[in-house]
Amino acid sequence: MQLFFRRVRATPGAAPGTLVINKQSPAPHIQVMDYNANVFTQKILQTPQEVIQYLTDGEKTVTWIDVHGLGDEAIVRELGMIFDIHPLTLEDVVHVGQRPKTEEFETHRVVMARMVELTPDGNVETEQLSMLLGHTFLLTFQEFPGDCFGPVRDRLRAGRGMLRRCGPDYLLYSLLDATIDHYFPVMERFGERLEELEDEVVQNPRTSTLRKIHDMKQELQVLRRAIWPARDMINALLRDDSQLIKPETRLHMRDCYDHAIQVMDMVENCRELASGLLDIYMSSVANRTNEVMKVLTIITCIFVPLTFIAGVYGMNFKTEISPWNMPELTWRYGYPLIMGGMAFLAIVMLFSFWRVGWLGSWDDEEDGIEGSGR
Amino acid sequence: MQLFFRRVRATPGAAPGTLVINKQSPAPHIQVMDYNANVFTQKILQTPQEVIQYLTDGEKTVTWIDVHGLGDEAIVRELGMIFDIHPLTLEDVVHVGQRPKTEEFETHRVVMARMVELTPDGNVETEQLSMLLGHTFLLTFQEFPGDCFGPVRDRLRAGRGMLRRCGPDYLLYSLLDATIDHYFPVMERFGERLEELEDEVVQNPRTSTLRKIHDMKQELQVLRRAIWPARDMINALLRDDSQLIKPETRLHMRDCYDHAIQVMDMVENCRELASGLLDIYMSSVANRTNEVMKVLTIITCIFVPLTFIAGVYGMNFKTEISPWNMPELTWRYGYPLIMGGMAFLAIVMLFSFWRVGWLGSWDDEEDGIEGSGR
Amino acid sequence: MQLFFRRVRATPGAAPGTLVINKQSPAPHIQVMDYNANVFTQKILQTPQEVIQYLTDGEKTVTWIDVHGLGDEAIVRELGMIFDIHPLTLEDVVHVGQRPKTEEFETHRVVMARMVELTPDGNVETEQLSMLLGHTFLLTFQEFPGDCFGPVRDRLRAGRGMLRRCGPDYLLYSLLDATIDHYFPVMERFGERLEELEDEVVQNPRTSTLRKIHDMKQELQVLRRAIWPARDMINALLRDDSQLIKPETRLHMRDCYDHAIQVMDMVENCRELASGLLDIYMSSVANRTNEVMKVLTIITCIFVPLTFIAGVYGMNFKTEISPWNMPELTWRYGYPLIMGGMAFLAIVMLFSFWRVGWLGSWDDEEDGIEGSGR
Amino acid sequence: MQLFFRRVRATPGAAPGTLVINKQSPAPHIQVMDYNANVFTQKILQTPQEVIQYLTDGEKTVTWIDVHGLGDEAIVRELGMIFDIHPLTLEDVVHVGQRPKTEEFETHRVVMARMVELTPDGNVETEQLSMLLGHTFLLTFQEFPGDCFGPVRDRLRAGRGMLRRCGPDYLLYSLLDATIDHYFPVMERFGERLEELEDEVVQNPRTSTLRKIHDMKQELQVLRRAIWPARDMINALLRDDSQLIKPETRLHMRDCYDHAIQVMDMVENCRELASGLLDIYMSSVANRTNEVMKVLTIITCIFVPLTFIAGVYGMNFKTEISPWNMPELTWRYGYPLIMGGMAFLAIVMLFSFWRVGWLGSWDDEEDGIEGSGR
Amino acid sequence: MQLFFRRVRATPGAAPGTLVINKQSPAPHIQVMDYNANVFTQKILQTPQEVIQYLTDGEKTVTWIDVHGLGDEAIVRELGMIFDIHPLTLEDVVHVGQRPKTEEFETHRVVMARMVELTPDGNVETEQLSMLLGHTFLLTFQEFPGDCFGPVRDRLRAGRGMLRRCGPDYLLYSLLDATIDHYFPVMERFGERLEELEDEVVQNPRTSTLRKIHDMKQELQVLRRAIWPARDMINALLRDDSQLIKPETRLHMRDCYDHAIQVMDMVENCRELASGLLDIYMSSVANRTNEVMKVLTIITCIFVPLTFIAGVYGMNFKTEISPWNMPELTWRYGYPLIMGGMAFLAIVMLFSFWRVGWLGSWDDEEDGIEGSGR
Repeated sequence: MQLFFRRVRATPGAAPGTLVINKQSPAPHIQVMDYNANVFTQKILQTPQEVIQYLTDGEKTVTWIDVHGLGDEAIVRELGMIFDIHPLTLEDVVHVGQRPKTEEFETHRVVMARMVELTPDGNVETEQLSMLLGHTFLLTFQEFPGDCFGPVRDRLRAGRGMLRRCGPDYLLYSLLDATIDHYFPVMERFGERLEELEDEVVQNPRTSTLRKIHDMKQELQVLRRAIWPARDMINALLRDDSQLIKPETRLHMRDCYDHAIQVMDMVENCRELASGLLDIYMSSVANRTNEVMKVLTIITCIFVPLTFIAGVYGMNFKTEISPWNMPELTWRYGYPLIMGGMAFLAIVMLFSFWRVGWLGSWDDEEDGIEGSGR
Repeated sequence: MQLFFRRVRATPGAAPGTLVINKQSPAPHIQVMDYNANVFTQKILQTPQEVIQYLTDGEKTVTWIDVHGLGDEAIVRELGMIFDIHPLTLEDVVHVGQRPKTEEFETHRVVMARMVELTPDGNVETEQLSMLLGHTFLLTFQEFPGDCFGPVRDRLRAGRGMLRRCGPDYLLYSLLDATIDHYFPVMERFGERLEELEDEVVQNPRTSTLRKIHDMKQELQVLRRAIWPARDMINALLRDDSQLIKPETRLHMRDCYDHAIQVMDMVENCRELASGLLDIYMSSVANRTNEVMKVLTIITCIFVPLTFIAGVYGMNFKTEISPWNMPELTWRYGYPLIMGGMAFLAIVMLFSFWRVGWLGSWDDEEDGIEGSGR
Repeated sequence: MQLFFRRVRATPGAAPGTLVINKQSPAPHIQVMDYNANVFTQKILQTPQEVIQYLTDGEKTVTWIDVHGLGDEAIVRELGMIFDIHPLTLEDVVHVGQRPKTEEFETHRVVMARMVELTPDGNVETEQLSMLLGHTFLLTFQEFPGDCFGPVRDRLRAGRGMLRRCGPDYLLYSLLDATIDHYFPVMERFGERLEELEDEVVQNPRTSTLRKIHDMKQELQVLRRAIWPARDMINALLRDDSQLIKPETRLHMRDCYDHAIQVMDMVENCRELASGLLDIYMSSVANRTNEVMKVLTIITCIFVPLTFIAGVYGMNFKTEISPWNMPELTWRYGYPLIMGGMAFLAIVMLFSFWRVGWLGSWDDEEDGIEGSGR
Repeated sequence: MQLFFRRVRATPGAAPGTLVINKQSPAPHIQVMDYNANVFTQKILQTPQEVIQYLTDGEKTVTWIDVHGLGDEAIVRELGMIFDIHPLTLEDVVHVGQRPKTEEFETHRVVMARMVELTPDGNVETEQLSMLLGHTFLLTFQEFPGDCFGPVRDRLRAGRGMLRRCGPDYLLYSLLDATIDHYFPVMERFGERLEELEDEVVQNPRTSTLRKIHDMKQELQVLRRAIWPARDMINALLRDDSQLIKPETRLHMRDCYDHAIQVMDMVENCRELASGLLDIYMSSVANRTNEVMKVLTIITCIFVPLTFIAGVYGMNFKTEISPWNMPELTWRYGYPLIMGGMAFLAIVMLFSFWRVGWLGSWDDEEDGIEGSGR
Repeated sequence: MQLFFRRVRATPGAAPGTLVINKQSPAPHIQVMDYNANVFTQKILQTPQEVIQYLTDGEKTVTWIDVHGLGDEAIVRELGMIFDIHPLTLEDVVHVGQRPKTEEFETHRVVMARMVELTPDGNVETEQLSMLLGHTFLLTFQEFPGDCFGPVRDRLRAGRGMLRRCGPDYLLYSLLDATIDHYFPVMERFGERLEELEDEVVQNPRTSTLRKIHDMKQELQVLRRAIWPARDMINALLRDDSQLIKPETRLHMRDCYDHAIQVMDMVENCRELASGLLDIYMSSVANRTNEVMKVLTIITCIFVPLTFIAGVYGMNFKTEISPWNMPELTWRYGYPLIMGGMAFLAIVMLFSFWRVGWLGSWDDEEDGIEGSGR
């Protein structure tokens, strides 16, 4: 059960700017893409210092510094020094588990987003994406290798389209757009899982079904906590009077904002559906108890009176002493008569159960369910 | 189960402006209506280029370009070029599943709405309506043929009324008004279905009933996600300081806004009622279990003691050895006495059940329900 | 089940201003009251045209044109012409089912309110009241004869009080005040019904009780949808910078606004109580099942072991073959001993049930309930 | 069940300013306290007219006119005349059941508050407190004698502290503060009642417990409707740009506002707890049904098979005719063997029930509950 | 059950500024830390008067006066006099149980916060932290010794970092940051408890489990009431135009604000999870009842018919009188035939139960649960 975003944090009371490194995060792998409409260079850096030449090379190029892995405090601090990152921002970059947000500093704007991924076994995982937008560069941090930016890198390399002609703000938009759009296939997978769960609830509800609904609500909760502040963050990018983001890019951000709202709608919709499944589950259990009760009652109602009758004729009253003492026992057709009476009684009871609708209900239910399936 | 609006979307990370064509959408069918108070021309265009003559014919006419079908990327792109549509807007037009919204561009305003329809088997379907309002034209896109604008077209042809005297903004209003008003018969149908469901829940609740309530809530959810942003969109049309919409038309929009709020009220009302039905359903199931229990208990309570008595007199104590060993077995009237005693016991038990109210309850319930029906 | 306000509406797509006349509404009955502090005239008009003389008679009088019935399109349209009513407003007047609202036009202000009434069989009905406030006149429309304005008319005739000395805005206030105040007796009736229902739920819950709670919630929902927008409407009257409403009248409106909020409080309170009753109902049903179960269990637990013992001594082991074969059967006091043992066992079981609290619970419950009644 | 605040109201449609006197309210008892830092006079007035001398005595004194009882229309109207009270305000004073609110008039400010009291049998009662703040006087109305202002009067008489040195606005604050602070002991009593109820729910839930929870929620609802608008009212006193309230007093009001929010927190907290108790109650009932079911099932499962075996050996097959016909009946140790087999079967069943955890559950539950108690 | 924050309060109606001392709070223990970038003094004061020299020593030092214990009214009043604290503020300091808030006075700003702690037995306790920020000093009050500021004091002593170089506003920030950050381990502990509870609910639900969920919700409620106003308070510190807080410190406050929102997210998340556990608990109980029912029904359905058959052959019809009277009793293979028939019947019933899925369900459930565990 994943209660919150996976978090790294300093001890309470530690000095602001203390960095706690997650041991499981690999050492930073820094890749630089330096481009404008005409040129395109891609290089993997060995030391953070190498980045300086790209930032100050005089040519009017956009530099994307793409850092995967936060496992080495020295390198992160060095990058922080080079790009003049506020210690608290650096803390947020390293202490993953931040809510999406954006803040403007003197020379750059910080944007925190949250990427979402489906693990192979169908669970949802989120990963923090920290972005630093400057006038000529974009610096991005991820905790682990692997992201959803392959198509963006391809477009950069291919050299087609606006991406190469525009500044780092458009690159920021493209990454943000890819991040948000990646929620759609995840939500569609959720939709499928909900449909599977719905079938399970109706056809074969068991305790594990309830558990699955609960787990799904929990994951939706995590998604919700990721997408709601993302919407606010994009809105801030749209509205804030920042020099770093050009009006044309804002127009594109508006589209990204719409997508964020659509994802939110989907998340809310799934949440309501999951709650609805819970109702159906509870009612299915109640219905099954009802069915069990009916079987018990029918059997009891038919056989208990018959057993009583048999018991009566098993009494040891002496028929020889008095003609009043169970003369039926000595009749020629006593036994067949009694057995016939019992059979008649059983049939009458079965008929009255059928009238009340208890007998046919079993199959009816099944039909009813199948009839409503589409 | 229709979780979200039907959607078409590009792969996450694709370049903005990439159009993904839904193969099931027919090729665009373009109809032009060119009119003012005096003249009226209606023509089906073969190529998008033909539309240019209507836009630039010097006469002061309003041109309605009515496009049904989004199945051909080239034609859609050509229209986009002619009307100078922003690539992202074109994307929204083609990637149906957008929320209702409105945005102003330099030469035109884009309005996205959502038409609602009842399929013949009673399900709700929604379809995206994209509108582009210019100073002298209105361009509308729908994914499939068939809409609710027949009466508007008739009024245009008939030449009566304000429609022919006013500009494209009034035409936009008329289409929007027809779209919103079309929700009313849908909501009325929902009201009828709710009443049918209510009868079913009270008279014959089964698992399929629960399923129907769940499905209805789901459809209401879809309607809700269509009408809430529609209200905001109309409000934006009312309030935004746009040159394209004249004050007189805004007055009419206010009416349209009122209708949107009425639809919202209806949707919320239906949602609350559907939740109420769920409560009644659960309680009906509980009541039925209770009834079954009562039958079981009555039968058991009457026959188990009697069977015990019969069992006692079926014991094989030797009456001949001791006068203390069941002397009743040898009495002349032993058997009738015991049987009478049993009958008396049964009557006493039946009477006490009647006193507690268990016996009469069955019919009472039925009466009670009928009595409360109106 | 009354899902929404009763509504009349045009076909979707009809031209704005199309009037659909409800055939059940009677033909308009127009009554004029023309008054100032000194004079008072009351007349029933045959044609709408007669009203003109009252509006233009030079004297400084207030004219109240009171129209009951909307069954004749020609007369309504003629009134619309005389008072220069916007076609959309006229549509709202005729198409009853509008939410309370207010709009200012050039020469008048339109106020839509909703009157509430208890039908003789205790149901709630609402009726639309449309008011048109001009500088010297007030025009009111109701769909059916019969309203709650008798006391206002009496005060007008009596000539006492502020009503005769003030303008049409004060008359508007008086009618609005009477309308809102009429909600109070209705809500008090609801309070009584809730108390009756509460007694029924505790003393004799049945399916029809649940139905009644559901119906009541439904009616409260209708009331709620009437009073919430009414509050906003009165607030708009208070705040809007209108020439038609004098400051002194606004002071009175503030009182009316307070009353609307009190009604809202009452409606919300009743809604919460009705939900609480549902909980009690569900728990009562569960309790009753529990009681039935206890009876079943007690009877079974006492008699099943006894029956087993009787069954043992009904076995046909041959006592004559072996002394090990049920020698009790041949004892002199075998039967009394066994019967005594059975009685002892039954008493032990009854005692342990009494200890667990199952035996006394029945009466206790009853006492408990009575004890908590006030 | 107290649905709303106790209310008095005029017939709907009555002229504004009509006063409906509650017959149960005693005749007004008017007490005047006239004070400044140096002097202090306290007098009981026979007629309202006597108050005029205190208002106009030239000396710079604060006059507190304290009216208990609203049972005499003439006296109330006379007071209204002397203090120039607006007829609608006078109506609100007499028609108790108003929500807390404040309104500024030309010469005075009206403040409506709601005092809360615990009746000796533990129920909550609220009473309307109407206050009229002028430049040199404070006029207060209560419907019944008895209030929570004893300590304030004592402080006035004692002559210590700010109360004597400050104006009537500080007196208003002191009364308001006493009113709000009086909610704390009431809420603490509610907390105790909730704890008692919690114990009852866990240890001995019965229908009357549910009733008590329901009643408590109802009373909390009443308190909530009293304290929410009180907060808004105090906020208005804080923010409104009134000449009648001095800045220093506003500083104190801020404290009063904080207390109102604390009371609101407590009310909301109690409401959530009461809802939680309902869940525990429902689950307790379900648990008890489960316990009853287990007892029934254990008894049935043990004795029904045994009874069957006894029944088999009670069959009358003729052992003498065939060696296949129940030869056990003629064995020497047949009976002990069968009885031993039965005992073994019973032990096996008991053991398997113990394994499943049904046997020990009873005591476990008890322990579990005690174990969790603190 | 801790309903509200632990509170101390004066009698309602007491004069504002009355201090009610909690007898359990120890006498104030005053520690002074006087520092700037170069010097650092730490001293425990005997009397409040000693503090004056630190405030007025001419050097530009920051003075932190750290008061633990509120048990002596004289000392608290003396401190109030020295620092010119408003009587109402002093009241709030002593009457712990205030909501987090901040207010600006002429010479200082008051900040009320709430520290959270886990007691050794895992319960949550909150303690009020009152802070008074002046231009050169920070005065803090706690009710009891022991807090979470150890690391801050260590940083002060160590002399590293910004803390020594910045003013008292940065010290305030550091304490607030430590307070908020201390919520994180508490919330993580809650997360663990929720996971433990989830396992308990699924594997072994009992009444005490429900109690634990209820208690946890209650504690979360307390946390929620602490953190929501804390967020508003920090926001006020961020936004208010105060001279006492420098822009650089505000930047740090923004980080603190983010943390407060993260804590709020966690609290809300835990609340939703706890509610979800309640659903699972209720459904587990229902499932168990269902299991018990199935066992009962299977046993009854198998043995009741068999017992009936045995009863039939225990009837005493005289086989010698008529060949119609149970001739099976005299057959050679009568008994084995009947027993075989009974066995066949039992097997048929068992098979049909297995088909319906009742027999296997027990183990299936277990597997299902284990299968879903991760």
